[in-house]
Formats: sequence, structure tokens, C-alpha cells
Amino acid sequence: MSKTDFDILVIGGGPGGYVAALRAAQLGLSVGVVEAQHLGGICLNWGCIPTKALLRASEINHLLHDLDTYGFKADAVSFDFTKIVGRSRAVSKQLASGVAHLLKKAKVPVFNGYGKLDGIGPEGKRKVKLSQKDSAETTLTARHVILATGARARVLPGLEPDGKFVWSYREALVPDELPKRLLVIGSGAIGTEFASFYRNMGSDVTLVEVAPRVLPVEDEEISALAQKSFEKQGMKVFTSAKLGPLSKNATDVTVTVEAGGKTHNITVDRVISAVGIVGNVENLGLENTKITVDRTHIVTDALCRTGEAGVYAIGDVAGAPWLAHKASHEAVMCVEAIAGKTVHPIDATKIPGCTYCRPQVASVGYTEARAKEAGYKVRVGKFPLIANGKALAMGETEGLVKTVFDAQTGELLGAHMIGAEVTEMIQGYVIARSGELTEAELTETIFPHPTISESMHEAVLAAYSGALHF
Amino acid sequence: MSKTDFDILVIGGGPGGYVAALRAAQLGLSVGVVEAQHLGGICLNWGCIPTKALLRASEINHLLHDLDTYGFKADAVSFDFTKIVGRSRAVSKQLASGVAHLLKKAKVPVFNGYGKLDGIGPEGKRKVKLSQKDSAETTLTARHVILATGARARVLPGLEPDGKFVWSYREALVPDELPKRLLVIGSGAIGTEFASFYRNMGSDVTLVEVAPRVLPVEDEEISALAQKSFEKQGMKVFTSAKLGPLSKNATDVTVTVEAGGKTHNITVDRVISAVGIVGNVENLGLENTKITVDRTHIVTDALCRTGEAGVYAIGDVAGAPWLAHKASHEAVMCVEAIAGKTVHPIDATKIPGCTYCRPQVASVGYTEARAKEAGYKVRVGKFPLIANGKALAMGETEGLVKTVFDAQTGELLGAHMIGAEVTEMIQGYVIARSGELTEAELTETIFPHPTISESMHEAVLAAYSGALHF
Repeated sequence: MSKTDFDILVIGGGPGGYVAALRAAQLGLSVGVVEAQHLGGICLNWGCIPTKALLRASEINHLLHDLDTYGFKADAVSFDFTKIVGRSRAVSKQLASGVAHLLKKAKVPVFNGYGKLDGIGPEGKRKVKLSQKDSAETTLTARHVILATGARARVLPGLEPDGKFVWSYREALVPDELPKRLLVIGSGAIGTEFASFYRNMGSDVTLVEVAPRVLPVEDEEISALAQKSFEKQGMKVFTSAKLGPLSKNATDVTVTVEAGGKTHNITVDRVISAVGIVGNVENLGLENTKITVDRTHIVTDALCRTGEAGVYAIGDVAGAPWLAHKASHEAVMCVEAIAGKTVHPIDATKIPGCTYCRPQVASVGYTEARAKEAGYKVRVGKFPLIANGKALAMGETEGLVKTVFDAQTGELLGAHMIGAEVTEMIQGYVIARSGELTEAELTETIFPHPTISESMHEAVLAAYSGALHF
Repeated sequence: MSKTDFDILVIGGGPGGYVAALRAAQLGLSVGVVEAQHLGGICLNWGCIPTKALLRASEINHLLHDLDTYGFKADAVSFDFTKIVGRSRAVSKQLASGVAHLLKKAKVPVFNGYGKLDGIGPEGKRKVKLSQKDSAETTLTARHVILATGARARVLPGLEPDGKFVWSYREALVPDELPKRLLVIGSGAIGTEFASFYRNMGSDVTLVEVAPRVLPVEDEEISALAQKSFEKQGMKVFTSAKLGPLSKNATDVTVTVEAGGKTHNITVDRVISAVGIVGNVENLGLENTKITVDRTHIVTDALCRTGEAGVYAIGDVAGAPWLAHKASHEAVMCVEAIAGKTVHPIDATKIPGCTYCRPQVASVGYTEARAKEAGYKVRVGKFPLIANGKALAMGETEGLVKTVFDAQTGELLGAHMIGAEVTEMIQGYVIARSGELTEAELTETIFPHPTISESMHEAVLAAYSGALHF
């Protein structure tokens, strides 16, 4: 008979859940995972990973239509959409089985089913009721239970995914064919990435945002540059937009969008709704506990503890930012705290965010506006990629790097980037924030030449001694 | 009449020279530049920049022959080699004119000609004799003279560039046509990049190295992975090799290579000699000064001062490492010291190095072997890109990240990377070394998901608490 009692039981096998289990196993704790659908969670199966595989395809498609710039020629350029989608699914599958393998290697049992808090058992241990398909309910026990059930797409009335015209991210990841005309509602990271993917594959894309600008959590200048670039690529973008009801026709759907004092009737083949996410707080047995739910997330303290002793919540179900790397960091912190290690609460201004549209967007810490709101006197530096040698050599001159410093202490408060490879570059600024480095230390840092990352140095110089190459 | 007396006179307009001039101008010093050939120097005109434009083309060529992997098809894929080379030249030209523009904007006069130290003039100022084409010699004066004359390819007897069979980097950058069979002598960054470019464009490439491994300054494991990858790409690689004399035939050239106890007769169409560089120390008027030349570089102290008061040397002419970013950093440091600012001498273990072959190589600080030689007790962490989700999504799973820590203090001593985008990623580790961060701070850093840069985090964890995803 398999083990049913653990030091830690993790409910949910996404990036928060499985990392919690792996870290617990590293620390010699006994740990089990309850997962109903798929190890790796949304991120790995229906989010971060498969979208990146698709976006790689759209980058290639873009390049194939720009070959002449680089001295190349090709005839009859085409793609097999099924194959592109298939590759994305295969990548997800490979990584999900990688997670299963890691858990197996770490000797972590995975219970395929739903877990629900079910009071306190013998020795004060937490009981979790396990419901599995085709089996009777059983009870697992653990000293500590970590809730890591993630989140799902928010569904607005009238925008319910219908398997035909209206897609959530899920349907958008496995289309049968490329829609000719596409409407994307919501320009957060998810909506923007889909808009960019489909546009670069050839769809006619309209992006609608209720906020005054696309990528509303980014620095205003970055949002403006992103929008400009999307429009240059042929995307239609409406901001501060109000959406009327969908009217579904026989083969397409018409939506009324009010923006800029005008009313636009937009007829498209498909609509992607990407209007935020809600935490999976249902059916966890929270109702008879001291655990509080605020809107759709479980309320936790800085160490991921809920109102109920021995119950923790991490990742999306514990609230924003809804990022896999926030979930896995919380996982490690939460488990280490349980193991009695000294841990540091997460500082949200040290969590980077990336959007893998074209051009890419990445940032960490305070935007200029938020730094000012927080009472900082700031020094701001900017450097455009057009002045960077490597960017020119690569033919990737669109973009900007912007830094925000505390004028009093010289500490880097935030950094904001748009352009080629910035999602791989932002970690340098994150490390700087992690080490609480000042402009002086960043100025002294020798960035390699020729790289686009030199722009990160110039954007520091620009805030103080002056950029050298602009 | 134009100005002839300056606070600082810079001889040489490469990345060291022009950056010195720009920084001096920012600080309000009067400054002039003497440059005989081309602003931007070798780096911009015949080095870093044009090679990157070529390597972009070879990356594209590689991708075009791997389209099926990503679900794409194209017929009659071809390239116009003249156009590819032309693009590379155009990028160089644009950047060189950018430098001219920056100097003009900063009101820095540029004297097109040769400068030579010519003793001390009135008020103890340095005299520099200026020889210009079609003009009489004139004299410039300055309180401080910075020598930034760079370096050139080392020429081995029997391997002199002959305009036909034997190329230096210069001829290799402007080929009339793609050589069918190519021999590259020397597997430092320059030789390796050319070998990679020509191989990926379709040449049959043999790479010969006298040292026991390719990229001999890199960590041994990185060298081994690079060689393995080059060989997988169809390159022939000989290490610990001894080269016999070239025998030039009517249309090709035969070279004898002794390696691995065997003698190989290799017949090729072109030979690229990339066996190091020598400083441009000639005709600078050093002979009547206290300036010392060691082999081919000017001896300087940690603040770039030569044996002669008021004369400085920076960049390649002042010795290894021969890197543009080392030159420009020395430029800023040297000028700031002249301006009376507090400066920090360069720590060579904080200077990154990049090689833009496929896969890319980047590193900073101590290799594992050198750390041990230096007496450190080390902790080493490794993470292969095959275990990274973004690398898999991109189809770029070849590579490794390796960290070397001081086991006693936890300080990051060095980092070594091979794989996609590592040249843009290495700056994170450079920032960590700049801020003298330890494993604890790097462990606490939240790297964005999904990125290849997460491997940088895992390689830290691998040295301490254990990698999570491997």
C-alpha cells in the first residue's frame, strides 16, 4: 500500500506545487502531490511554455518575410499550421513528462485526483480528502498542506468560450486553422502574446484594451513604444475601449468597440478573451477553516501562511502577480520556512515580468510613475537600441532601455526594456536589484561588446554621467 | 585656424580612443583625436561589428536549413554572398559615421593623420607631431596624451596574407566568394567565429589549434562542448596540432597538420590565419621616452599610466585582454583619473569575454582550473540547457551553464556559458561579480520564467542546495 501520511502535502502540480515538492524532497521531508489534471499546471501545459513554442514560429515567419534584408532568398515560403501547433504541444508534453520524471526521481508520490481540506486528524495532522476517478474517496494526512491550485481564465458575461467563435487561451493554443480576422480582448501579457503570434503568422488582428494603454502594468513609455510597433506591424489597437455585446453570425462574429469617441463595428472569425484570471479556490474545503478568500485569491502573509495553522497557499491561487517564477519562488520559501530555515519574504519589486511579443518587453521594479507615487525623487536614464552596434548588426534596432534610480541613494528602483532579447537580458537588472546595487556599481560594471546588453549600461550612464553612444 | 592645444590628446580613434574623447568632452575637458585610418578602429570597421553582421547571416542560413523542425517550408533557398558581405560593410560604415557624428556633436576635433610623441613644449605640455597626407607636419600640444593605437593581426612566417590564398581577419571579412574548403589557423575568438561563419554558410572548414583545446582561454568543459558541437556541425578540428609549411598550388594550397600522432595533408582554397594580435607600438615616438614596451604592448600601471608622466596607454596597445569593452572601460577610467575623479583599477576577473560562434560562448572570471590554481577551494554548479523549458521551446537545447564559487565565502568567482543567447546573458553574472554577490543573493534572485536565463539560477543552485530541474 502506498504512503498516505506526509510532512508536506501539496495540492496542485503546477510550477508552485511541483517545485515545493522537489524542494521538500531535497530537504529530506516526506512529501506528496495531489494533481487532478496535468503536472506542470497551466504554465507548462497551457501557458508559458506552449506559447513560447508558438512565438518561436511567428518569429521565424517574420524573418522568412524579411530575408532580402539579410541577403537571402527563398521561394514558396509556407508553413504547416498543424505542425506548428503540434510542435508546441510536443514541447509541453516533453516538459510535463520531465516534471513527472523529476518527481519520480525524487521519490515523490503523485496522487491523480482532487484534494480537499478535511479538518484535523490524529496527532493534530491535517486531513485531506482525496477524490480520484473510479476509486472510493480516501484520506491523506500531513503536518503541512500547501495549496497550489493555480488559476484559470476570467470569463466575462457574453464572452464565454463557446468552442467556436470565442476562445480562451486554451483554445487559442490549439487552433485547427489560422483565423483570417481575429479580435483579442485584453492587452496584458497573455492577450498581447496571442495578438503578436497571430499577427506575425498572418492574421488580421485587432487588439482591444479597456485601460488607456496596452500592457498597462508596464512603464508608460514602454507601452507607447509597444503600441506603435504593433500598429507598424499592421495590428489595429484600441485603448480606453468599451466593448459592446458580441453578435454571432453564421460564420463570423461582430463586435462593437467604442474608442476615441467613435464606434467601430468589427467583424472577425475568432475572438480571444484574455481579460485576467481568477484563482482556483473552489472545492478546497476552505469553508470550514479560518482561511480567508479575497475576491478570488487566498489571503496569505509574507511567508505564504493562510489563516489556518499548517495550511499555506502559493502561486496564482494566492494572488498577483500571476507568474510562474513568483509561484516557484514562493514554493521554495514556503518549504524552507517549514523546514526551519531562515527565509526572506518576497519583495514584489524584485520580481521581473516578461511579455514575449515582438518586440519583447521585460521589466522589474518601479515604473517611473510608480516610483514618483511612492514618494521617490527619481533619476531616469534612457537608451534607444537604434544607437547600439549589435542591434544594428542583427537588424533589430527597434527598442528602448529605461532605468529608474532613487536620486537620493542611487539605488536602482526599476528597469524597463522593449526590444530583441530583452526577456533574456532583464535578469541582469534583477540581480542588481537583488544585490541592492547602486548606479555607481552598475556604472563600474564592464558589459561585453558587442551586445545589445550594452544598452543596459548606457541606460545607467544616461541617468547620471551621460550615455556615451547617444 | 583650428585648435591645436588640448587638455587631452588621444592618438587612435578606436573604441578606446573615441570613448576617451567623448568622456573627456562630457567632463568639460578640451580634447582632440588623431586617427590615421578610420574612426571606430578595427573593432567597428574590421572586427567585432562586421563579424556580428556576418554571423547573423550564418545563423539565418542555419535556420533556413532546419525549417522543417519548426513546421515551415521554402523552396530554392539561396543567398547572395556579395549582398551579405555588403550588409556587413554597410553596418560598419553606419556605425563609423555614428562615431564621427558623436565626436562632432561633442565638438571634438578629429585630425586625420598620424601622431607621434615629440617631447615637452612650453608650459611643460606634451608635443605631438602630426603627419597628415598632403600637408606639412604640424605640432599639437596637450597636458595629457592617451595612446590608443590598438593592435593588428600577428603574422607568422609563411602565413603572410598574400591577397590570394592566405587571409587575415581583414580579407576574411570581405571575401569575393565563399571558399569551398577553408582552413582556419587558431581557435581563439576570432578564428572560431570565422570558422563558425564559413561552416554555417556551407564551406568545408578545418580548424587547427596549437593548444590542447579550442577556445583555450575558456573553461575546459566549455571548450570540450564547443569542439563537440563544431564537429557535429561537420567541422574538422585538430588540437595540439603542429602546422607544416604551406605549399601553394595553382588554384589551392596544401598544408601539413600533425595531430594525434598522425600527419594530415589538407588541401584548401583559402587559409585564415588568426594566431593572435600585436600592439601598434611603432612610430609613436616611444624611443626617446621612459615608456617601456613589453613584447608588443606598452607597459602601464593599474591606472593606464606609462613610464612617462602625462602619457597613458589604453586598449589593445596596452595589452591583453584584447577586447573593445576593456579598451572603452580603460578610456573612461583614464580620463576620469585625469579629471581628478576617484577611480577603481580594472579587475581582469570582472571582464567578460564572448565568442559569437554557434553555439555562443560567454564567460567571466575564474575558470574552475584557474580558481584552483589561485588557491581557492571551490564549489561548482552546472546546468545543461536540455533541461530548460525555453531552450526546448526555442529548439536551442545545446549548451551548459557552469558556475564557480569560493567555497569559503560563497562569492561567485566565475561563470561559463555555452548555448543560445549566452552573450546577452553573461552580463547578469558580470553584475553579480561587480557587486561581489554571493550564492545566497543569487539563490534569492527571481529569474523570469520561461527564459534560458533560468539556467543561470539553476547553475547557482546546483553548486549549493541542488538544481531543481535536473
